[in-house]
Amino acid sequence: MERVLTNLRLVTMQPDAMHTGNGYRVIENGMIGITNGKIMFAGKACHDDLHGHPDVIDCHNALVTPGLIDCHTHLVFAGNRANEFEQRLNGVPYEQIAKAGGGILATVRATREASEDELYELALHRLQGLISDGVTTVEIKSGYGLTVDDELKMLRVARRIGELKDIKVSTTLLAAHAVPPEYTNRADDYIDIICREMIPAAAHEGLADYVDVFCEGIGFSPQQCQRVFATAKEFGLGIKGHTEQLSNLGGSALAARMGATSVDHIEYLDRDGVAALAACNTVATLLPGAFYFLRETQRPPIEHLRRLDVPMAIATDFNPGTSPIASLRTMMNMACTLFKLTPEECLRGVTCNAAMALGLSENRGRIQVGMDADLALWQLESPAELSYRLGIPDLIARVVDGELFYANEAKNSVDEEKRNAN
Amino acid sequence: MERVLTNLRLVTMQPDAMHTGNGYRVIENGMIGITNGKIMFAGKACHDDLHGHPDVIDCHNALVTPGLIDCHTHLVFAGNRANEFEQRLNGVPYEQIAKAGGGILATVRATREASEDELYELALHRLQGLISDGVTTVEIKSGYGLTVDDELKMLRVARRIGELKDIKVSTTLLAAHAVPPEYTNRADDYIDIICREMIPAAAHEGLADYVDVFCEGIGFSPQQCQRVFATAKEFGLGIKGHTEQLSNLGGSALAARMGATSVDHIEYLDRDGVAALAACNTVATLLPGAFYFLRETQRPPIEHLRRLDVPMAIATDFNPGTSPIASLRTMMNMACTLFKLTPEECLRGVTCNAAMALGLSENRGRIQVGMDADLALWQLESPAELSYRLGIPDLIARVVDGELFYANEAKNSVDEEKRNAN
Ligand SMILES: [Zn+2]
Ligand SMILES: [Zn+2]
Repeated sequence: MERVLTNLRLVTMQPDAMHTGNGYRVIENGMIGITNGKIMFAGKACHDDLHGHPDVIDCHNALVTPGLIDCHTHLVFAGNRANEFEQRLNGVPYEQIAKAGGGILATVRATREASEDELYELALHRLQGLISDGVTTVEIKSGYGLTVDDELKMLRVARRIGELKDIKVSTTLLAAHAVPPEYTNRADDYIDIICREMIPAAAHEGLADYVDVFCEGIGFSPQQCQRVFATAKEFGLGIKGHTEQLSNLGGSALAARMGATSVDHIEYLDRDGVAALAACNTVATLLPGAFYFLRETQRPPIEHLRRLDVPMAIATDFNPGTSPIASLRTMMNMACTLFKLTPEECLRGVTCNAAMALGLSENRGRIQVGMDADLALWQLESPAELSYRLGIPDLIARVVDGELFYANEAKNSVDEEKRNAN
Repeated sequence: MERVLTNLRLVTMQPDAMHTGNGYRVIENGMIGITNGKIMFAGKACHDDLHGHPDVIDCHNALVTPGLIDCHTHLVFAGNRANEFEQRLNGVPYEQIAKAGGGILATVRATREASEDELYELALHRLQGLISDGVTTVEIKSGYGLTVDDELKMLRVARRIGELKDIKVSTTLLAAHAVPPEYTNRADDYIDIICREMIPAAAHEGLADYVDVFCEGIGFSPQQCQRVFATAKEFGLGIKGHTEQLSNLGGSALAARMGATSVDHIEYLDRDGVAALAACNTVATLLPGAFYFLRETQRPPIEHLRRLDVPMAIATDFNPGTSPIASLRTMMNMACTLFKLTPEECLRGVTCNAAMALGLSENRGRIQVGMDADLALWQLESPAELSYRLGIPDLIARVVDGELFYANEAKNSVDEEKRNAN
């Protein structure tokens, strides 16, 4: 093993460690061995093996979880909609803001005008929020370009972020996010462009892992979404959907039956929809930030999802219009407080279930031999605290492909000097 | 002037800069001069004066606000109640948790057992959350000791935090937080101890600026609170109250009439209560974190407070039972989202109005000549963003008594090298 982390309390998120009475099991006095960026050992410490080992890091009893995964974000965009937020609270009607060019089209305009470098810098700054919450994998959607060139530009920025060695990125083409102004009342023509130009180009250039849609009265119809999904599959891309956020159009069931890895939002999902997810092994991604920010009152069907064992993921949906909150732990707390999820469900929602939502279950989301050595080390007593308290700098370090990245070089409790001491 | 900050956009929170159409006025190309820790100049830059000046700091167009003030926290305590949080979400009834020694008495037990040094370390770690949100003044209450020695111990810890040069602390004796187990069914006897021993000792040792009470069915009666307030005033201490949080007992009006600087929570405050605050110039402190965490549905009477021009403050109420959220900006966002305050009201709530809640209006809470040079520098376009977006590291630096403390030495956009360059 190239690197060994010792003196850990392991929260592996492995199936056999969960549902154990009062929640997940914590393995005390644990150890993780890493070779070539993969986990080669994870379990009770066996110090006999460590004599003469080149790189042993004493983690001082830190709690370790899989690196967190934010499986739904719109991190790349330009412009600023704090002004709209303020206007709304000052009583300006939404219609007036929209007429003045506000809303999603304001973000589209700014994003089209921005260069790739500008978008990259902006996204990188926002990403720091997620990183300080222990995120090691983030999904990033396009959807504010709405032209072939601008959608590809957004995806290129997302891919470029993924080249950083301390964060992994899944990319999603969300051209079907809104009807662009050039296509007002001609949504089908825009769907043509998506299917004939955008999806082929994104696939050809290797820019998209997934294709996503906004299936809603104010977005696209199930029929239009079906065309997008079918084309995506033709080009070998995965699919997922923004579905049942504001009404029940059956988009979740449609997406699930066509092979979506996840359907997201789902406040208005009914029993039949939940049954479709269960039958198709589709992840239900909850986005409590948008629920909170929009003052929604319709809650997702948590009890039905539990009853049919549908895996639930939790994500930030970070975006300028409905969830400007770059904190996955805030989402965990909101999922507990607003949706009454348990802290264990929340942690699954940002680790193993989020990996499933991104089709990455084989490599990420658990601490398990053979998987990527993507970890988060915490100065916490119990994993429940991840969902319970907010604002306090609990993260000690992240590990990505076996490499350590400290949250705060000056103040971490993992003693780097102890390296090479054994 | 000993130090000059240039190239700032000033948000002074001075009365004449507010209510200007779409919110507070921002002074572009601003400058702040500092001498002996006080603001000696604040306004449009006048670069002619700077030639040969020893300490000019170019702030690269940063937005600057008064340092934020968190005017209601319970930052000092020991123990961990994430387990209760988890049990509740797993369906364990509250009664069972209380019977097993949970709830506030669990915190009391742990706090009594903890040494001053332990409490200090714990509080300091939590304080980092507030500091990273730009807080320069924090109020800290006792209330988990509930014996003479343990309440004084908590206050000593709070005072010790206040000795740090980058944070200012106001302390509050909240002995009347809960009836201690030793006094079950003998609340009046406990009030005797508070009035005869605790208040005199805290005043004598200079440990408390304020005396606070929990006026509620599950706390103390208005009559009991009146005794506490009267004694506090006798000993020259300020008063404030946890009032009208769960029901309307008239505690807010009582406190206001006796000279309280603030009444806090006030979800159940009625019109008469609001009128009493207006008549007595008492600040209404909103605690949206507790509202959120307790899933409260009764909102504070915002419209009445506005109509009678009652100043509103916003605070974290950071505590282990009902608001484990060490982020004042999260509270600003929640005040907008849950209470529909405007971003300008929120910023007043954590600057000038919070200063008023702590009786510090003459020295803090505005950028004004003669006041303490306590500032927060932000990498933001508009002050509305402080309430709008969360999680992103927007803070560049804090200034306390004229001294700069960078949020992140490695990544700040204020160029320290430019010092001494002019
Ligand atoms: Zn979304
Ligand atoms: Zn309180």
